[in-house]
Amino acid sequence: MTPTELAELDAQWRAANYLTAGQIYLRGNPLLTEPLRPEHIKPRLLGHWGTSPGLTLVHTHLNRVIKARDLDAVCVWGPGHGGPAVLAHSWLDGSYSETYPDVSRDAAGMAELFRQFSFPGGVPSHVAPETPGSLHEGGELGYALTHAYGAAFDNPELVVACVIGDGEAETGPLAASWHANKFLDPVHDGAVLPVLHLNGYKIANPALLARIPEAELDALLRGYGHEPLYVTGDEPGPVHHAMAAAMDRALDRIAAIQRRARADGGADRPRWPMIVLRTPKGWTGPHDVDGVPVEGTWRAHQVPLPAVRENPAHLRQLESWLHSYRPRELFDEGGRPRPEVLARVPEGVRRLGASPHANGGLLLRDLPIPPLEAYAVDVEAPGRRTHEPTRVLGGLLEGVMAATAARRDFRVVGPDETASNRLQALYGATAKAWQAEMLPTDEHLARDGRVMEVLSEHLCQGWLEGYLLTGRHGLFASYEAFAHIVDSMVNQHIKWLRTARRLPWRRPVASLNYLLSSHVWRQDHNGFSHQDPGFVDHVLNKSPEVVRVYLPPDANTLLSVTDHVLRSRDYVNVIVAGKQPTFDWLTLEEARAHCARGVGVWEWAGTEDGSREPDAVLACAGDVPTQEALAAAWLLRRHLPDLAVRVVNVVDPARLLPRDAHPHGMPDAEYDAVFTRDRPVIFAYHGYPWLIHRLTYRRAGHEHLHVRGYQEEGTTTTPFDMVVRNDLDRFRLVMDVVDRVPGLGGRAVAVRQAMADARTRHHAWTRRHGTDLPEVADWTWGEG
Amino acid sequence: MTPTELAELDAQWRAANYLTAGQIYLRGNPLLTEPLRPEHIKPRLLGHWGTSPGLTLVHTHLNRVIKARDLDAVCVWGPGHGGPAVLAHSWLDGSYSETYPDVSRDAAGMAELFRQFSFPGGVPSHVAPETPGSLHEGGELGYALTHAYGAAFDNPELVVACVIGDGEAETGPLAASWHANKFLDPVHDGAVLPVLHLNGYKIANPALLARIPEAELDALLRGYGHEPLYVTGDEPGPVHHAMAAAMDRALDRIAAIQRRARADGGADRPRWPMIVLRTPKGWTGPHDVDGVPVEGTWRAHQVPLPAVRENPAHLRQLESWLHSYRPRELFDEGGRPRPEVLARVPEGVRRLGASPHANGGLLLRDLPIPPLEAYAVDVEAPGRRTHEPTRVLGGLLEGVMAATAARRDFRVVGPDETASNRLQALYGATAKAWQAEMLPTDEHLARDGRVMEVLSEHLCQGWLEGYLLTGRHGLFASYEAFAHIVDSMVNQHIKWLRTARRLPWRRPVASLNYLLSSHVWRQDHNGFSHQDPGFVDHVLNKSPEVVRVYLPPDANTLLSVTDHVLRSRDYVNVIVAGKQPTFDWLTLEEARAHCARGVGVWEWAGTEDGSREPDAVLACAGDVPTQEALAAAWLLRRHLPDLAVRVVNVVDPARLLPRDAHPHGMPDAEYDAVFTRDRPVIFAYHGYPWLIHRLTYRRAGHEHLHVRGYQEEGTTTTPFDMVVRNDLDRFRLVMDVVDRVPGLGGRAVAVRQAMADARTRHHAWTRRHGTDLPEVADWTWGEG
Repeated sequence: MTPTELAELDAQWRAANYLTAGQIYLRGNPLLTEPLRPEHIKPRLLGHWGTSPGLTLVHTHLNRVIKARDLDAVCVWGPGHGGPAVLAHSWLDGSYSETYPDVSRDAAGMAELFRQFSFPGGVPSHVAPETPGSLHEGGELGYALTHAYGAAFDNPELVVACVIGDGEAETGPLAASWHANKFLDPVHDGAVLPVLHLNGYKIANPALLARIPEAELDALLRGYGHEPLYVTGDEPGPVHHAMAAAMDRALDRIAAIQRRARADGGADRPRWPMIVLRTPKGWTGPHDVDGVPVEGTWRAHQVPLPAVRENPAHLRQLESWLHSYRPRELFDEGGRPRPEVLARVPEGVRRLGASPHANGGLLLRDLPIPPLEAYAVDVEAPGRRTHEPTRVLGGLLEGVMAATAARRDFRVVGPDETASNRLQALYGATAKAWQAEMLPTDEHLARDGRVMEVLSEHLCQGWLEGYLLTGRHGLFASYEAFAHIVDSMVNQHIKWLRTARRLPWRRPVASLNYLLSSHVWRQDHNGFSHQDPGFVDHVLNKSPEVVRVYLPPDANTLLSVTDHVLRSRDYVNVIVAGKQPTFDWLTLEEARAHCARGVGVWEWAGTEDGSREPDAVLACAGDVPTQEALAAAWLLRRHLPDLAVRVVNVVDPARLLPRDAHPHGMPDAEYDAVFTRDRPVIFAYHGYPWLIHRLTYRRAGHEHLHVRGYQEEGTTTTPFDMVVRNDLDRFRLVMDVVDRVPGLGGRAVAVRQAMADARTRHHAWTRRHGTDLPEVADWTWGEG
Repeated sequence: MTPTELAELDAQWRAANYLTAGQIYLRGNPLLTEPLRPEHIKPRLLGHWGTSPGLTLVHTHLNRVIKARDLDAVCVWGPGHGGPAVLAHSWLDGSYSETYPDVSRDAAGMAELFRQFSFPGGVPSHVAPETPGSLHEGGELGYALTHAYGAAFDNPELVVACVIGDGEAETGPLAASWHANKFLDPVHDGAVLPVLHLNGYKIANPALLARIPEAELDALLRGYGHEPLYVTGDEPGPVHHAMAAAMDRALDRIAAIQRRARADGGADRPRWPMIVLRTPKGWTGPHDVDGVPVEGTWRAHQVPLPAVRENPAHLRQLESWLHSYRPRELFDEGGRPRPEVLARVPEGVRRLGASPHANGGLLLRDLPIPPLEAYAVDVEAPGRRTHEPTRVLGGLLEGVMAATAARRDFRVVGPDETASNRLQALYGATAKAWQAEMLPTDEHLARDGRVMEVLSEHLCQGWLEGYLLTGRHGLFASYEAFAHIVDSMVNQHIKWLRTARRLPWRRPVASLNYLLSSHVWRQDHNGFSHQDPGFVDHVLNKSPEVVRVYLPPDANTLLSVTDHVLRSRDYVNVIVAGKQPTFDWLTLEEARAHCARGVGVWEWAGTEDGSREPDAVLACAGDVPTQEALAAAWLLRRHLPDLAVRVVNVVDPARLLPRDAHPHGMPDAEYDAVFTRDRPVIFAYHGYPWLIHRLTYRRAGHEHLHVRGYQEEGTTTTPFDMVVRNDLDRFRLVMDVVDRVPGLGGRAVAVRQAMADARTRHHAWTRRHGTDLPEVADWTWGEG
């Protein structure tokens, strides 16, 4: 590196550090054109200085190699608490002012950049959707590296740098993410360049990876399959030299790996390079404050000089700290960065702040979904035959995979459950991605597969998020109960989408689609630990503008719903659908109409004659509850043929919400027309029953609503025993109806007794034979 | 190892394998005394054979060393899907029959052992609370190793073996858990012996760690800080020899490490041994079925011969498989294990199935909690002064730490947030556990510390679960939003407790206590990503017999609640309490009475004269909502002095539930007496508002209830701006009251306008100054 290049890099780095500190501290006097006074200081000092100089160093050196090599690159900023560092660089490279014209690249804009940071009505303190060039919110730690891999898949020309803080490195999801290199195809995917930043401390504690011997760390990183390159120091000059050399070596190595795999067809799994950067926390900030060491310690984590408005000595120390960057050398009188500062900054879409990959909607193409007719099941009459809904869906997904074989912009992720969830038709069109050793007994593994299976819901979720935010499509298929493993990740993704939707410059991205199968009612093998339907509740707590939930009751409705969610944008869609044989209720045409409405009366199932309000409404949502509700309707037909029963099926529970609470909410008049205002409604619901109450409490008929659902009574048992244990079975539903319809008199008593007898028969049969009662197991609607 | 010893170990292993296969397949003919017929086979074949022979091998060899060395040991069975393997050993060693006398150690008992497995009304398919000797449910993978460390902390004489499946090893929590060895004190803690079992496959895919070169795996494990010992093979004899040697070497090494640290005061961080066991999946089961390889492939995962009832060839294959274990050599005519089988099985509490550490309530002692008076804050009048509640609590926790200094049965865990959550008084009595390198700038680190800080909520949760289930006490302090990271773990722990409570032989253990601080309303630094109050909703979905939630509004109520939860048993308690200055409302005596009731009218805050029902009820739950509700009451007093307002504070939201829905639920009469049946209730709630509706929808007054809470409107802003953005502020609450009290006429309009003006003033002031409106920031109740 020439002295000029070093000087230019250092100028850029100093400029970014100056702008970072300025954002944390200054509300006026941005260029220090006058002595610093208390009124120039923000009243509340918020932000994280400690990690920022490391981020600016990485950003500066990424800029260098991007420009020198004309790289297509993005960066995932794991230590996203250091928001001002990334904002500083975006302002420097001009992308900030292009995105937000009111923050111009001059003195006035610099003042606004400083003022707005962590200020009411301004911008948040972390790297966030508001940050140009970001595809990762750095607030909740753990997901940087899995996001980086998601961005790199099927982006063969892209380099995804990823800064990993030594705090984040302690988290489970990050620890698992290192092994994602066994899923990265050097031919069809881009490269991930991890930069592990060891600044030694977290909030208040040393960081583990910074406190093990370097030989142990080296073994660990090689054990992860990487070739580590070390950059260590606290003197800027030597660190710049070492960092430039490490970047060059890493990118040379990446280029060689890709060249070999792509041209020469090398089949060995490559050892990808990575960089270990060891620099002080709060580097170049106050060395000590009031006699206590700050730089290089945990005390530099947030605001290293906290009392600058009240303490003149601190104010002077801040001033001299800011002057240490020599702002006059960096910015001209108008506040514009001087040419030296920008000499090593790339231009146009090569700038990290302007990459279209970080605003993936710009690159998104509509998914080519084949017509559903080719996959739908024939239904000559409802409830006669069964199909496994997810197996039917597998056909459609195979069709999507086939249609994207050349485009490579669709992936299915899952924690080793794709076949268990019966989606294995997918393997007709693609394989499972795998770069590690393969054996002759293996099936459906290939380097270029687009089904991603790893026993980590965190990796699945992170990969898919990174893939979607860079403008592609996908589906996450999981066991229902274990979706909770990523509760906190989906929170963050929903927050991202909620914020991004309000930013006009962020283009819509494909929705994050969950298929939750192997659900609570059919965990015959695994029992209580695998029985939890609460992910829907979790998701429905979040922003209604983003979240959508679907409970298709059969194969054709599952096809229709999936077709819809795969075409949607900027949502988190949760589909709950079983894999076990389920009655076919609707033809494809009926399914489409029903799913479009979200809630519908199934006239063929009820016993209304249209002359009056029904005596009772049997409502249901979810495949197993629908089966039980329909069986209850069938029993009522036989036991009480003159009772007018209406059967309502709910695919989209958000329809139950008031219109002002969710975009899908039904007007009251429509709700009343379906559910009545005063008739008993027995609602068989897939999950926790109170969710239905929480959705409907403002409806007129709410006091007549009685919900059955999962009550945490689970174990390894038969399918029908599960619904009996939770009082969701057909016999209980019939009892619920007769208990609530007035005027049945002795007939109610008789029906109630017949139902209780059936439950007794069930109990005795199941305990004796270990199977379900034949009258239940063999029941079909069609018999009637 | 002598030929006799080998023969005895092999007999034990074969017996366990026979019993494992028997549980999966047989409902009759347990000793194969007659030819196997279809009616001897269970109608539904459930269970996981694949992992089981590995578990039985480890169990057999643990038995050997336990007996030979008189070890105090437990084992965490990570591949807990292999439930029948552990049940088999418990039946062999007699602990099963002691726990469940109806399953005797003879032919009749063996028949029952087989029949009940995965059978309706029987026992679940996984290692579960029902399994003697278990402290870990193996259904949801990821937590085995962190549980093992939790069990080992402060158990210096205990060896905790931990089997880690190669599937589980891919999860994030497990990947992070390897570094837990940097927190294990060789002086005060016991040893953890990880056994990484590479059988090569998960459900349907190869496992990562089984498919990287052994040199890379070795580097990885050494990078984790372990000394790996390898046992590889598919011939029983050599594997027995190798496993016995590895066990001996590992235990010798553990003994040497402990001796050196305890006697010689060695200060280096030890490299603990571990075992890598590489044997075929489904080992000793059917080699191939219908010409397709099964043993050693993923096809052995569950039931390797699925069609034995229908397919005579499969039935014969099963029979010959079962005979391959030579059951007549293993069991006498009465079905009792022969002496050779039991020769290497330990006795009494040394048996893994009988260890009191795996039924920790047997060892639990009451926690010595000092009197709260020493820590309570003086409150001469409500709402005059402020304290930081969690800082006050820190004093009490320091007292508990000091009182347990010798006993060492209390730990506080947290993800690098103990000081951030202002509990640092703890460091007056103990330090943070740390075995890695220490530097002079570090503070409060020590090898024997009992505050556990690592940036992994998963590790914190797992450590605490393991610690509690082995009979000790603790508290998990976390940022509120990030408790969702362990949603799925707490699910599993609640399920464990719910099941364990119903087992008479399981003694009550200390509750798992969460302190959620740095909550949604005070994330001034970190903004939207850190704002989520939904953990309470998540927990309240689970078994009411286990879950408890508390929202203490001030310092003294926090002390009282914490004192209560630390004394409780078999619950998951969630306390939400802020760390920022909060008004002191109640004296300690008042706080105790209020917390005991859970819901109370604060007469001093209202304007009722007792002559009539109030005009409106202002209810509140949570510290910030309480402040806003009290400020609203104060404003109403001034603007509408003749309005009769009742102020109700809720500490325990489960009190709002009907009595039949939760043990804490209030009778309707009591609820009505507090909230009225027909007056408007404006409820200021800490979290998502619909939770309050979901708790109260069955109450008479529900239609008059109006709840304000968090609506996902978050960012980096001032504290008061956060409540305004979510319509939880005092001015909005006043408007809500005047909008709902009839007959106020023009006064309502005037008050409404005054409140709207105040919100406008807030908006302008905050956007300009970046701080809260002085009339809000300086407000105290005491001024009135």
